[in-house]
Amino acid sequence: MQAKTPGESRTIMTDLVLPSETNPLNNLFGGELLARMDRAASIAARRHSRRIVVTASVNHVAFNRAVPLGSVVTVDAAVSRSFKSSMEVFIDVWIEDRESGSRTKANEAIYTFVAVDETGRPVAVPPLKPETDLEKSRFDAALRRKQLSLVLAGKMKPNDATELKALFV
Amino acid sequence: MQAKTPGESRTIMTDLVLPSETNPLNNLFGGELLARMDRAASIAARRHSRRIVVTASVNHVAFNRAVPLGSVVTVDAAVSRSFKSSMEVFIDVWIEDRESGSRTKANEAIYTFVAVDETGRPVAVPPLKPETDLEKSRFDAALRRKQLSLVLAGKMKPNDATELKALFV
Amino acid sequence: MQAKTPGESRTIMTDLVLPSETNPLNNLFGGELLARMDRAASIAARRHSRRIVVTASVNHVAFNRAVPLGSVVTVDAAVSRSFKSSMEVFIDVWIEDRESGSRTKANEAIYTFVAVDETGRPVAVPPLKPETDLEKSRFDAALRRKQLSLVLAGKMKPNDATELKALFV
Amino acid sequence: MQAKTPGESRTIMTDLVLPSETNPLNNLFGGELLARMDRAASIAARRHSRRIVVTASVNHVAFNRAVPLGSVVTVDAAVSRSFKSSMEVFIDVWIEDRESGSRTKANEAIYTFVAVDETGRPVAVPPLKPETDLEKSRFDAALRRKQLSLVLAGKMKPNDATELKALFV
Amino acid sequence: MQAKTPGESRTIMTDLVLPSETNPLNNLFGGELLARMDRAASIAARRHSRRIVVTASVNHVAFNRAVPLGSVVTVDAAVSRSFKSSMEVFIDVWIEDRESGSRTKANEAIYTFVAVDETGRPVAVPPLKPETDLEKSRFDAALRRKQLSLVLAGKMKPNDATELKALFV
Amino acid sequence: MQAKTPGESRTIMTDLVLPSETNPLNNLFGGELLARMDRAASIAARRHSRRIVVTASVNHVAFNRAVPLGSVVTVDAAVSRSFKSSMEVFIDVWIEDRESGSRTKANEAIYTFVAVDETGRPVAVPPLKPETDLEKSRFDAALRRKQLSLVLAGKMKPNDATELKALFV
Repeated sequence: MQAKTPGESRTIMTDLVLPSETNPLNNLFGGELLARMDRAASIAARRHSRRIVVTASVNHVAFNRAVPLGSVVTVDAAVSRSFKSSMEVFIDVWIEDRESGSRTKANEAIYTFVAVDETGRPVAVPPLKPETDLEKSRFDAALRRKQLSLVLAGKMKPNDATELKALFV
Repeated sequence: MQAKTPGESRTIMTDLVLPSETNPLNNLFGGELLARMDRAASIAARRHSRRIVVTASVNHVAFNRAVPLGSVVTVDAAVSRSFKSSMEVFIDVWIEDRESGSRTKANEAIYTFVAVDETGRPVAVPPLKPETDLEKSRFDAALRRKQLSLVLAGKMKPNDATELKALFV
Repeated sequence: MQAKTPGESRTIMTDLVLPSETNPLNNLFGGELLARMDRAASIAARRHSRRIVVTASVNHVAFNRAVPLGSVVTVDAAVSRSFKSSMEVFIDVWIEDRESGSRTKANEAIYTFVAVDETGRPVAVPPLKPETDLEKSRFDAALRRKQLSLVLAGKMKPNDATELKALFV
Repeated sequence: MQAKTPGESRTIMTDLVLPSETNPLNNLFGGELLARMDRAASIAARRHSRRIVVTASVNHVAFNRAVPLGSVVTVDAAVSRSFKSSMEVFIDVWIEDRESGSRTKANEAIYTFVAVDETGRPVAVPPLKPETDLEKSRFDAALRRKQLSLVLAGKMKPNDATELKALFV
Repeated sequence: MQAKTPGESRTIMTDLVLPSETNPLNNLFGGELLARMDRAASIAARRHSRRIVVTASVNHVAFNRAVPLGSVVTVDAAVSRSFKSSMEVFIDVWIEDRESGSRTKANEAIYTFVAVDETGRPVAVPPLKPETDLEKSRFDAALRRKQLSLVLAGKMKPNDATELKALFV
Repeated sequence: MQAKTPGESRTIMTDLVLPSETNPLNNLFGGELLARMDRAASIAARRHSRRIVVTASVNHVAFNRAVPLGSVVTVDAAVSRSFKSSMEVFIDVWIEDRESGSRTKANEAIYTFVAVDETGRPVAVPPLKPETDLEKSRFDAALRRKQLSLVLAGKMKPNDATELKALFV
């Protein structure tokens, strides 16, 4: 299969924060943002693989900034690395100030999807060819994250996680 | 106020068609698409004006293609002309084929918004400066549409609608 | 097929404006009202044709009055003219004051539906026989609106739109 | 306060059964129908009292007929008797066959509402003046139902429930 | 079939009151609570019968306490008696104070479900064996409620409702 | 502040998978499950702290098993460790087979919440006192997870993450 760039799967979902999606402090519910990111990221994974995709895991997500009712939220997702049948998708979330128009980063998240056929069995996906510096750095870090995920799931010995181990030793 | 380009208000909302949004033929409900377009277009009007905006009217919308359950739908909205306190927003709706990745036009719609202050009173908005050929042709047609809307509402005599009249005489 | 009156398709949908349907000014979202009108109008078209119906187009809709949170909204729809397999549905939207009980017109809209069989192919619908003066005037205007829609879609030459042309010349 | 007829509070809510409202047998969820009836009945109680109203109780509701996905459901509610600050609302639910257009009764329910002021305190409501035979028979039965409800809540001795007792002795 | 205890079907559904579920006084809509109770009770009936279950009826429900926006609501449901193919489910609703942690009873309701096969035909369910005093008293009262329901539906003569009659004579 | 046990914050949310929450394979959307877990976990954090709580982060979540439409899903959440003003909540997700009644583990997730006052400023929370072996092992692992989270966020040097480093060296 021919490699694709992150730009080919990039997915932009701009939408409002509606009253039904807010918590008692009038900010977007964490759970609602997780659901939006899942939809945007699944579209990116689908654009990369042209297959049905299912969410396999969500990496650490930090909620650094509250997103108030009525905000314009942009979820910007693109495949950051692909493995045999799985794809890591990097998601940046931005909010913009209505009066000044300036944008600030609200969140960052990483989801992993698996491409499957109609019966739910994993199928191979194209390799990813990063282009910009940011894309390359995310591509490199993806391997460490995969090792971390395998170690935490007890499917890889810490000693074999060479990329990850290098961080600590 | 300084003029802005359509590109400065352009808003992209890519999302899935979910099971709760479909009719008995398993296609996206017309009403649900109207609601999505309203949200995307209101964000474009807000980006142009940096004000609270409210929907003033919806022009003729044709539903040419059914949008099936599970489709990826992209709503692409940008201000096409601004008047004193109102803005016309042009919306293109695309669906993409999962396997081939090809995109086809599903709909086109035109909404009008008014910029208001916190008390709901209309406020002035920046002029629009179209750049591409498509933007220019939509800018020109907007005046005819405004006249048509005034004639249909009984607020302008057909005889005074010079741009519109030229079509028929 | 035997003609039917507008009364036979008339559909009344009275409901509250719920908190999840409001914009930052605490009024009903334009998009939400468009969706409600679509559901009520589709029931009217279905009652006239006794067929599956799909939204074909939405005519110019003006949002003249804000509809505040907690309002009682009545959407009142009836077929205003039928063509070969399409039906124009006229929709009046009313809100009522809780304390005085008085009703005011909030909106007017016109949707067009096509009757289809289970495979999605257009099928013939009964003619409409208007009875009241209002029904007759809406019936007559429907032809001008159909010509306008064909002209705007580039499917009829302005010169052939005799009913419409008469307005301007 | 001047008496009102049931016709003055009558509320009709016709709507589709949407995919998101169905159970595993593809019929409308009982809980969803209970919620629709609550909204329609609360509008009837509000029309009778011109006050804020809150649900006080739901009488026995029998679900005699399944309501399939895609059905047109009409909820028809009107105040059947008023007491000091409470109102009993009788609700008839109809579904109609798309092809024949015939209507069949799907459910019947009785809800009770209390009229309150902005602080939530009960306020007086107008008496009800039934007109048709059906309205009169529902008006009479309402007293027995109120006694039954007081007996079941332990707020009235069975011996004092004269209307109700007459049924058994 | 072997008897089961109420504990084997007990179902706990703890959730927040979200902004989209509240009325103009900012309390949980009666209709929304009816829908939540229906879902929890249907799970209890399904755990008792291990069958598809459909709502057959809702007994008298009193809304004694308002449930404010942001509350934590616990719906606690268990089968209280089973008949041939139907099951009565008793539901207790609790809200808890965030600061003190104390719980107060907000509502009580009784729903009846019927177990059905894939074609919708009623099937037999296991008997219920109550254990605690509360379970036994609810078990006994269920028979009176069933008679009351048959009498109100005109399917049993008041004279034959021996358990119920004893209350009044 | 007095220590609390995990049992004191334990929150059980049992609910159905509704049609509006499923993906094209008819399984629960990953995003929807993330939102449910967020609500249940926030209630657990609130029960521990008796404060308003906001989602701070989501740890690695693996979606090991598809959750089909109509399933009964139990989300079981309890605080697993508390820090100064933050709380780690461990969530187990179970689905049960309707016919056999057997339960299987579908997911595991870890969310972190911060307790805040009405102005959104962090406030102190009680310590956690684990009791069972499982609670103790989750309590111990929480410190490694916190270090990992600080290292990944660039707020702690890998060399200072003593608990974590021990895994690799």
